[in-house]
Amino acid sequence: MLKLDTAVPGVKGFAVAGIHAGLKKDSKLDMALIVSERECTSGAVFTRNLMKAAPVLVNMDHLQQRGQQMRAVIVNTTNANAATGQVGLENARTMAQLTASQIGCAAEQVYVMSTGVIGAQLPMEKIGAGITLAASQLGNRWDNAAAAIMTTDTWAKVASVRVQSARGEYSIAGISKGAGMIAPNMATMLGVIATDAALPSLQIQSLLGAACDTSFNRIVVDGDTSTNDMVVLLANGASGIQLETAADLAQFQEALNLLTIYLAQQIVRDGEGATKFITIEVNGTQNHADAAQIAHTIAASPLVKTAFYGNDANWGRIVAAAGRAGVQFAPDQTSLWIVPGESIVDGERGLLLFDRGIKADYEESAATAIISNASIYVTLQVGSGQGHAVVWTCDLSHDYVNINGSYRS
Amino acid sequence: MLKLDTAVPGVKGFAVAGIHAGLKKDSKLDMALIVSERECTSGAVFTRNLMKAAPVLVNMDHLQQRGQQMRAVIVNTTNANAATGQVGLENARTMAQLTASQIGCAAEQVYVMSTGVIGAQLPMEKIGAGITLAASQLGNRWDNAAAAIMTTDTWAKVASVRVQSARGEYSIAGISKGAGMIAPNMATMLGVIATDAALPSLQIQSLLGAACDTSFNRIVVDGDTSTNDMVVLLANGASGIQLETAADLAQFQEALNLLTIYLAQQIVRDGEGATKFITIEVNGTQNHADAAQIAHTIAASPLVKTAFYGNDANWGRIVAAAGRAGVQFAPDQTSLWIVPGESIVDGERGLLLFDRGIKADYEESAATAIISNASIYVTLQVGSGQGHAVVWTCDLSHDYVNINGSYRS
Repeated sequence: MLKLDTAVPGVKGFAVAGIHAGLKKDSKLDMALIVSERECTSGAVFTRNLMKAAPVLVNMDHLQQRGQQMRAVIVNTTNANAATGQVGLENARTMAQLTASQIGCAAEQVYVMSTGVIGAQLPMEKIGAGITLAASQLGNRWDNAAAAIMTTDTWAKVASVRVQSARGEYSIAGISKGAGMIAPNMATMLGVIATDAALPSLQIQSLLGAACDTSFNRIVVDGDTSTNDMVVLLANGASGIQLETAADLAQFQEALNLLTIYLAQQIVRDGEGATKFITIEVNGTQNHADAAQIAHTIAASPLVKTAFYGNDANWGRIVAAAGRAGVQFAPDQTSLWIVPGESIVDGERGLLLFDRGIKADYEESAATAIISNASIYVTLQVGSGQGHAVVWTCDLSHDYVNINGSYRS
Repeated sequence: MLKLDTAVPGVKGFAVAGIHAGLKKDSKLDMALIVSERECTSGAVFTRNLMKAAPVLVNMDHLQQRGQQMRAVIVNTTNANAATGQVGLENARTMAQLTASQIGCAAEQVYVMSTGVIGAQLPMEKIGAGITLAASQLGNRWDNAAAAIMTTDTWAKVASVRVQSARGEYSIAGISKGAGMIAPNMATMLGVIATDAALPSLQIQSLLGAACDTSFNRIVVDGDTSTNDMVVLLANGASGIQLETAADLAQFQEALNLLTIYLAQQIVRDGEGATKFITIEVNGTQNHADAAQIAHTIAASPLVKTAFYGNDANWGRIVAAAGRAGVQFAPDQTSLWIVPGESIVDGERGLLLFDRGIKADYEESAATAIISNASIYVTLQVGSGQGHAVVWTCDLSHDYVNINGSYRS
């Protein structure tokens, strides 16, 4: 039985720091460094936004060149190094180079992550001093690293899983920050995951891709995709555990999913202005992609999100959003249930609101009682196909407008 | 020179009423009837939402059967007759039948429009009495009809154009209401356009389609598409003017576009919680559809809309939204300008904020001064292609959340 730990007792062969480089005010931690003592196999998932930030472009290049020899991740906040042209690309490469010379490797063995304002050039003097400081404070400080990558997040997001495998024990740890483009001028969902197991280089990218597909790619705060989104997985093998068989990899995938789903859900829970945690489950489509498309459309609808905020069990908005998702289904085979909580227990979908194309027979007061909870689980059945998807989202509140409508300060 | 009139002096052969049938509180007008004394050629544009309301399905059937013999449009508010199953379809057909028997035609010669709460059955007794009352009060009351189709609109939307053609004078009049799914449980953009010119039956659908493509299909309030959206065009020929030649039809198209653009813009100006009128122009794509897709993505972005609300000239959010629109373009050939107002005068695009992939050299105070206006024109150039589109939108304010987050009353 895999168990999540909301701290990181340690991941062998990784040293981590979070420091204050003078980028944020009030001595807050603002740069993070994650270093492996040995070369790692690695995978990475990047934003699909066409306007990719400089560090994303540099990392894509590094992954291609040295994906199986990576050593470190350097992260800065307050500046996204996006829409910064050739100077921005040079600055991202310089960040990798400065980090590499501190730890003794090639620049191409370093991933660079930036998050913050779009369009301004990095303050390279502070960044350079920050890298030197971070390198001098390396230790088991995943908590500091998680705090150092925050922007408008209100808490640090960090967790780990210790896995008892047939071959012995190994660990996976991860940190993440800020969902999508939820923050004023901030523009990034970032995640760094490290394990001391050794993973086969041919499979690491698909393991990370599969984990992201059920976690970071299943959350919606406001539907905007940032220029800087990035998740990396580093496996250094320092535990001496070499994962090879299908059973080994399946167990690792399960542990990785547990960790990434937790980190992804933390992002939704800490979504700007969020007052509710909402799960949207869609079943019955021809395939999983169709179910995910419907679930994402519902989760991103401002009308659905404001209804949740207002404790209004407004199933009409939910089915109308489903209807415009671009997926074919039969309205008269479509039904909708709601229940309090974050999961379905014993197949109990809760109160039926919409019954094969028409309003179900229910009391409005019962629906209101459910929708007024802090966590709500919505199940939409749109036919009898095998397609299935779950998406997590939050509501759209006055505070979202407060936070995003306020002038940059 | 075509000129818009914000009243309707009259359209020959059409009689119109707006009455109170007891659907809204406080004796407000809540049903509208538009009748032509003779059979009309007609075209109609329907919502693309899969969850089509009963009146939409019934009208699609009527258009197919009697599209060139239509006589009337009956509209009710407060109830969308959507997600109402077989009973809903029967009620929509009954509305057509009751209207037909009042004016002496076949039920299939009547369009039915409904707007309001999703999922409840129509109060058919009140609706029936309302139809009888409306039929008894027919006259030149386009103002009443426009008021009667309002839901959370704050003003009635009505206009007309008188056209001096080579063949003589004719008129076009139109009414519209509420943009997209902007209202709590209300779910409709409706439009009715009538002309006393005679139009060739083969062209009327494409004339209306072209007009909608540059007007009602170019507005965004919240990105939600309703189950009831519908625009109809009726041409009865009562002016004696028969439009036939390419020149005749081009002039009609121009007048129709003038009218529909006005009515569509009125919907954005009256968008829920709107404090600003924003024009998004996109140029330089391979084709017009790509430009429209980028412009729509920008217009629907909650981050872009909250930035406008907050007087924040946040071009990073605009180009990031463009980057996730699903259209290929080169960031380093992409530039962005803003200027106050609703149109570009003498090619003056205003202040350059983003210059071929990087931040332009401008003063933040100058950008803030522009963005603080009630009307802002944004131009995004994404290459050198011939693709072009203009979309109108509004900002996302606290009031939008107030209106849509409040419990149904």
